[in-house]
Amino acid sequence: MQSTSPSTSPPEAFPAQTPAVAEIFTTVLSHGPLTRSEVAERTSLSAAAVTKAVRPLIAAGYLAEDAVDARRALGRPANPVRVDAGRALFVGIKATGDELIGVLADLCCRIRVARHLPLTDPDPRSVLARIAELVRELRTEAEGLGVPVLGLGLAVSGDVDRAEGTVRYSPFLGWRDVALGELAHAVSGLPVTVENDVRALTVAEQWFGAGVGLSDFALVTVGAGIGCGLVVHGKVVAGAHGVAGEIGHIAIDPAGPVCRCGNRGCVEAIAADRAIVDRITGTTGIAVTDAAHAVDLARRGVPGVREVYAAAGEAIGRGIATVANLFGPQRVIISGEGLAAYDLFADQIRGTFAAYAFGSAARCDVRTRALPFEEWARGAAATAIQSFIRSDIHQQRSHGAAARA
Amino acid sequence: MQSTSPSTSPPEAFPAQTPAVAEIFTTVLSHGPLTRSEVAERTSLSAAAVTKAVRPLIAAGYLAEDAVDARRALGRPANPVRVDAGRALFVGIKATGDELIGVLADLCCRIRVARHLPLTDPDPRSVLARIAELVRELRTEAEGLGVPVLGLGLAVSGDVDRAEGTVRYSPFLGWRDVALGELAHAVSGLPVTVENDVRALTVAEQWFGAGVGLSDFALVTVGAGIGCGLVVHGKVVAGAHGVAGEIGHIAIDPAGPVCRCGNRGCVEAIAADRAIVDRITGTTGIAVTDAAHAVDLARRGVPGVREVYAAAGEAIGRGIATVANLFGPQRVIISGEGLAAYDLFADQIRGTFAAYAFGSAARCDVRTRALPFEEWARGAAATAIQSFIRSDIHQQRSHGAAARA
Ligand SMILES: [Zn+2]
Ligand SMILES: [Zn+2]
Repeated sequence: MQSTSPSTSPPEAFPAQTPAVAEIFTTVLSHGPLTRSEVAERTSLSAAAVTKAVRPLIAAGYLAEDAVDARRALGRPANPVRVDAGRALFVGIKATGDELIGVLADLCCRIRVARHLPLTDPDPRSVLARIAELVRELRTEAEGLGVPVLGLGLAVSGDVDRAEGTVRYSPFLGWRDVALGELAHAVSGLPVTVENDVRALTVAEQWFGAGVGLSDFALVTVGAGIGCGLVVHGKVVAGAHGVAGEIGHIAIDPAGPVCRCGNRGCVEAIAADRAIVDRITGTTGIAVTDAAHAVDLARRGVPGVREVYAAAGEAIGRGIATVANLFGPQRVIISGEGLAAYDLFADQIRGTFAAYAFGSAARCDVRTRALPFEEWARGAAATAIQSFIRSDIHQQRSHGAAARA
Repeated sequence: MQSTSPSTSPPEAFPAQTPAVAEIFTTVLSHGPLTRSEVAERTSLSAAAVTKAVRPLIAAGYLAEDAVDARRALGRPANPVRVDAGRALFVGIKATGDELIGVLADLCCRIRVARHLPLTDPDPRSVLARIAELVRELRTEAEGLGVPVLGLGLAVSGDVDRAEGTVRYSPFLGWRDVALGELAHAVSGLPVTVENDVRALTVAEQWFGAGVGLSDFALVTVGAGIGCGLVVHGKVVAGAHGVAGEIGHIAIDPAGPVCRCGNRGCVEAIAADRAIVDRITGTTGIAVTDAAHAVDLARRGVPGVREVYAAAGEAIGRGIATVANLFGPQRVIISGEGLAAYDLFADQIRGTFAAYAFGSAARCDVRTRALPFEEWARGAAATAIQSFIRSDIHQQRSHGAAARA
């Protein structure tokens, strides 16, 4: 694989790749600038361990020490440390059914450049050529900035095996068992992380979004699919076999419509864009073209259309209640492109959640948050940063070839 | 509170109560005897940290050092350490709707004595008097053994707030907002841990049962209720607001029977003992008295009865599939007194799980395991041991009074 790589320089290594070092770095990334003792407090590690871990990170330029904070320096010096954002860049790409959204993100996972490329052919070879094109464009931008690109994150919907770098099944792309990590490494030469798109977005939310400081939260995405990222005990749930967060396939009605998974009455078969469009077409006789068309019909008060959205909202509310009843998150964040229709089913989502939440599970904070596709691509970049700083961890190998080495 | 306590000697303290020390102790408890380097490997802590933590635990008699293992001692000495089971005793009590099951467990959570007491009156004062009686009996046994009793664990079904020591709602006992921890402390003088019964049993399974060595598993209990304990990322899921694992109230059929929670078609409204009994009575016209009677009718081939069990099995299978689709556990353990009827719905549970598990979530290992009520009481004792060794952790205060201190 390596020999076919157009980029020959090996990626720069992150010092002392242990779980503790990764945790320290992630804590500073998410909450910094922090003093060493603040880091020790947040990570439950000893101050000595933090000091020892921070030293090589500063030496390698990944962390920087700020000037002494006078308020804190009354006793011994306690300079806050922060991530040096400009030390490295990462490319994150989110693939939807019809476009690629790519970002160049710095080490603080801030978006420096964003690019969109249309996808006309979902065939893996064709998508891969577009990925290569997008990576090339973004690396040219990186060269202009004079900062090395140290990793590539790819976010794809469906059943993704991050450890193997394989897309097992992606219905929107029509893929089965595509070794995307290996293929993307071959065309980019970069270490590649492949992750389910909702889990990737969940990482970004945990580090920088509405999940900061929470040990347990769920991110529910509505739109083309109904997805869910779960953070339990401070970590994203990946599933022992790569499947987790499948809120879309909670079957809530044996008399409901048939889902693409083969069962009846899944949340997704009632509340995903396609399901809503089909149902409105069926009830009104209007040939509804897409989600935007459906929303327009609802807003114009076409009879029967509002009811379809109400049923979708109830299905989503029941799905969220199930998540809350099973793991009792502090917060549920609702996002996804389906938020464009949120006013059409918000009452049903909240009302049904309240009705089906068991006991004090109803106290869970349910909120919405707009996250455009650039944020999903940023999530992909976040997974690349994760792999970079935690490449010792089994499930975070850089690409398929290495995974089998 | 303290002044009313019949036992005046304060409980002996566990040395150096930090999360790391608790983790080291629990690792030795679950996997020991282990050498210090084996403990370091399993906990991802440094060998120095393990050595430092082990020293006071040995000095206080909670850990013991075995004789040198000649096979391992070729290099530097590497004596395995193990928990000294005889150092302390704990009382664990599980309350069902009609009896108390109490055990005296040693520090290795092995049952030394077990006792049953019938409950005739579910009123909290009456139950409390019986708890006091049971604790007295078991302490008399402990005196005979010459070992101090250092904690009391109480396991109750329903919505339990462990941090507050409060039973928020227990349908089988008909309790609402009972400060059981405080009350039980008053009559026993012991530090008291109150926990949901399924979560307590999950702790015992994680430490000593079918969950040993697994970071992610679910324990599903069937019988009077349908419960679920979840271990995610190595820790029992408690829920931000005390509610978690409510598999019984996953609503799977809007046309199903009304549940005690007010919704229709919950798993529990179809598959719990009472639901099965009521449905058989409804379909056959036979006045079915209890679960044993229902099983008997099914075994005798009374028309219509098998179908009720089949529907119950399908509901349980769908509940388990939902858990697997959301968390992707390595294993699901099915237990509970409902296992007595397992042959009547095993095929439906497994068949429906397979049909509703999404993609590779179906690879999850689903198995049954008989756990009599003594094991549930042992789970209660395990939570008392947990509180004893982790009393620095916010959610594990010994009783309600301390929680407000
Ligand atoms: Zn489905
Ligand atoms: Zn219910």
